[in-house]
Amino acid sequence: MLRTLARVAVAAPFAFLSAHALAAPGEGRDVAWDILADLTTEVGPRLAGSEREAVARDWAVARLKALGFANVRSEPFTIPGWIRGAETAQLTAPYPQPLHITALGNSVATPAGGLTAELVYFASLDALKAAPDASLKGKVAFVDHAMRANQDGSGYGPFGQVRRAGPALASRKGAVAIVIRSVGTDSNRDPHTGVTGFPEGVAPIPAGAVSAPDAALIARIAATGKPVRIALVLEGHPVGPLPSGNVVADLPGRDPKLPPILVGCHLDSWDLGTGAIDDAAGCAIVAAAALRAQQGGKPLRTIRVLWAGSEENGGFGGVAYAKAHGAEPHALAMESDFGADRVWRLKFAFANGNQPLADRIAAALLPLGIVRNDERANGGTDVAPIITAQKLAVIDLEQDGTRYFDLHHTPDDTLDKVDPAQLEQNVAAWTAVLKIVADEAGPISGPN
Amino acid sequence: MLRTLARVAVAAPFAFLSAHALAAPGEGRDVAWDILADLTTEVGPRLAGSEREAVARDWAVARLKALGFANVRSEPFTIPGWIRGAETAQLTAPYPQPLHITALGNSVATPAGGLTAELVYFASLDALKAAPDASLKGKVAFVDHAMRANQDGSGYGPFGQVRRAGPALASRKGAVAIVIRSVGTDSNRDPHTGVTGFPEGVAPIPAGAVSAPDAALIARIAATGKPVRIALVLEGHPVGPLPSGNVVADLPGRDPKLPPILVGCHLDSWDLGTGAIDDAAGCAIVAAAALRAQQGGKPLRTIRVLWAGSEENGGFGGVAYAKAHGAEPHALAMESDFGADRVWRLKFAFANGNQPLADRIAAALLPLGIVRNDERANGGTDVAPIITAQKLAVIDLEQDGTRYFDLHHTPDDTLDKVDPAQLEQNVAAWTAVLKIVADEAGPISGPN
Repeated sequence: MLRTLARVAVAAPFAFLSAHALAAPGEGRDVAWDILADLTTEVGPRLAGSEREAVARDWAVARLKALGFANVRSEPFTIPGWIRGAETAQLTAPYPQPLHITALGNSVATPAGGLTAELVYFASLDALKAAPDASLKGKVAFVDHAMRANQDGSGYGPFGQVRRAGPALASRKGAVAIVIRSVGTDSNRDPHTGVTGFPEGVAPIPAGAVSAPDAALIARIAATGKPVRIALVLEGHPVGPLPSGNVVADLPGRDPKLPPILVGCHLDSWDLGTGAIDDAAGCAIVAAAALRAQQGGKPLRTIRVLWAGSEENGGFGGVAYAKAHGAEPHALAMESDFGADRVWRLKFAFANGNQPLADRIAAALLPLGIVRNDERANGGTDVAPIITAQKLAVIDLEQDGTRYFDLHHTPDDTLDKVDPAQLEQNVAAWTAVLKIVADEAGPISGPN
Repeated sequence: MLRTLARVAVAAPFAFLSAHALAAPGEGRDVAWDILADLTTEVGPRLAGSEREAVARDWAVARLKALGFANVRSEPFTIPGWIRGAETAQLTAPYPQPLHITALGNSVATPAGGLTAELVYFASLDALKAAPDASLKGKVAFVDHAMRANQDGSGYGPFGQVRRAGPALASRKGAVAIVIRSVGTDSNRDPHTGVTGFPEGVAPIPAGAVSAPDAALIARIAATGKPVRIALVLEGHPVGPLPSGNVVADLPGRDPKLPPILVGCHLDSWDLGTGAIDDAAGCAIVAAAALRAQQGGKPLRTIRVLWAGSEENGGFGGVAYAKAHGAEPHALAMESDFGADRVWRLKFAFANGNQPLADRIAAALLPLGIVRNDERANGGTDVAPIITAQKLAVIDLEQDGTRYFDLHHTPDDTLDKVDPAQLEQNVAAWTAVLKIVADEAGPISGPN
């Protein structure tokens, strides 16, 4: 019901794919857009463990039932909770400058009233690693980095380590807090959140990310050699166990004895934006494609949709799914969790005997502009545990990630960032794959 | 001193002009960058009337003296003050959604604890105008619009009326507050501030702007027909008179009896960003070009630099300059207040007898890619009062405004948005013009 206005709002620069150049839509076309628009509009931010994540689960169950899925159920589990609080930062010396900051997931709170301390600049995570033990005692570490946008998103692995490993490292060297340059590629003042972690025995410290322009400001000031001081309030902190859950639904195949095809995404989002690209779009794509694959005749195999909970804060949904369903055989798993820009690349993790099947899939996707790559597919966080447990076959349909890290984990992850034409190309690609694999009568399995 | 690191931080996409394709830099090249980098880094946000604006004036006097300007002085005046306060907004019905909001200058504060009221959607300012009198009693007006980016910035005139005139109009119809879609062209969650006004007899109301994605969300929800409610806290409010001032400096010409060339910009900025494109860049360009125009021999005429105070909240600096210097003859005025992307267009307001001079200037700029336009030049806010009072000749060097309103009046107006190569093209263009006009021995005057 929201589709007309929402489409008008899409930024023109990204509407470069003409919708009519893609596979004929049929009724499946609006399914994806409507899931995306309605989830982001009616539910909005849905932090793992929050009341809004629970609302999202109820919304998801109702929507999947309305779309004709069978066995729609919510599968509850419990997670270690974390909630956001007030978050502000200012440089107080040598020049007073307000900073735009956001806490990282699993950060602990600053003391009541905040803290003010010397800020020590590190150009990279390696520079922080090289700092002498205890050299940060009583100080705040700042870690910069050089992440740039790549189509394959490959910067997130190495540069994401600043967020994932930086806080524990700073704590080990005595820092009272850490501030990092956001793990992102944009240039606005909206910082990127995301999860960090503190291993057993490492004291958790307050950890936040500033936007890229703030990081550039800090770098310029640090380069003057003058002592830099920061006033920091980060009230986000862990809380006790909180309820979360997966939503699982089936489109039963003609042969219930054949192991199903599992397609995943995650329903939770970070709280700063409305989780449009991360990952309402993924849930929209997998559900719409599963439905469209029914057109022209029900496939042999069941297609199961997993809209996982609590991906962002540690992949708890995927673990819970593998635990709950580890005894049921599965054939193949896929996940969509990288936005909704066009699918440009295809990867497989197939048994040798399934190479002819892979060749047929690759041939079917080439007309959509999708090229095959020989690296091994790995699925995604929500399907990884069941893939590992059952050595499943995997297909990755990789979206163009050039602008993904402009938006990822920020307030800017909103509906207007999704181009309907590119979303439709995703659904068309997924449908083409599901049509083939769900009608495959022979065994499907992963590499040994 | 900050130049090396700052340059590295510039976003690559905008560095499309090769520096060596431009006029030979000489020592003038780094003058502009250093003014821009140092003012935004060492002073930062400098709201008119604030202590930081006073710091900026002191900084400016010191810098202009260090650069060799003569008669460098601060010329104080007083302005009606306005200060920002806490600002938050949430939709509370039909769906809870946090909004990103900022108060408009001259907004009054919401009642203690904020207000919660029905939000009434208007697709445009005309739709608000058409609402019956008193129909907004007890409600909050929301005004949307369709501003898009244009190279000449022409959207700002008509769509800026939503901000300039919308609040008074809503007040007249009984609204308890107004929220507008930011007057901007970006798609991130950083809203755009800017000044509004309430004429005599119109009760001031709290007035804020939400970001474009928030406006799109409100539009989608309003389109459902369900009643929308908003909770609003906008604590920004007018205060008593505050001190402000202009900084004026000269580069004396060979003939002190010839009326000077006046080049202006403004030193104050909105408080959300560091005022890099609005308008530290303008101050950097006019000062650097004035200095570079001395190379190869001091010109005939004095070049006077006006770094005006309090432009953003009502053009008080320009008025104060005209009042203080209205008895002194001037020859010609120019202003730079539209960022630092490349100058693409040139306009004149010249007496008929000065057309040969205009032709020489246009010919000198064509090699820099700058085309002549026949519309009349009008200067800018800071030089307009003296232009009007003395019927001065005017030249406009118009910058490419395609991305200006992505950044204008937002937290994103920061140093990293300025491309050094385009800044240098600005300085080169201004230098070429100043070389010609400051060496013109004959009379220079505006149209009758």
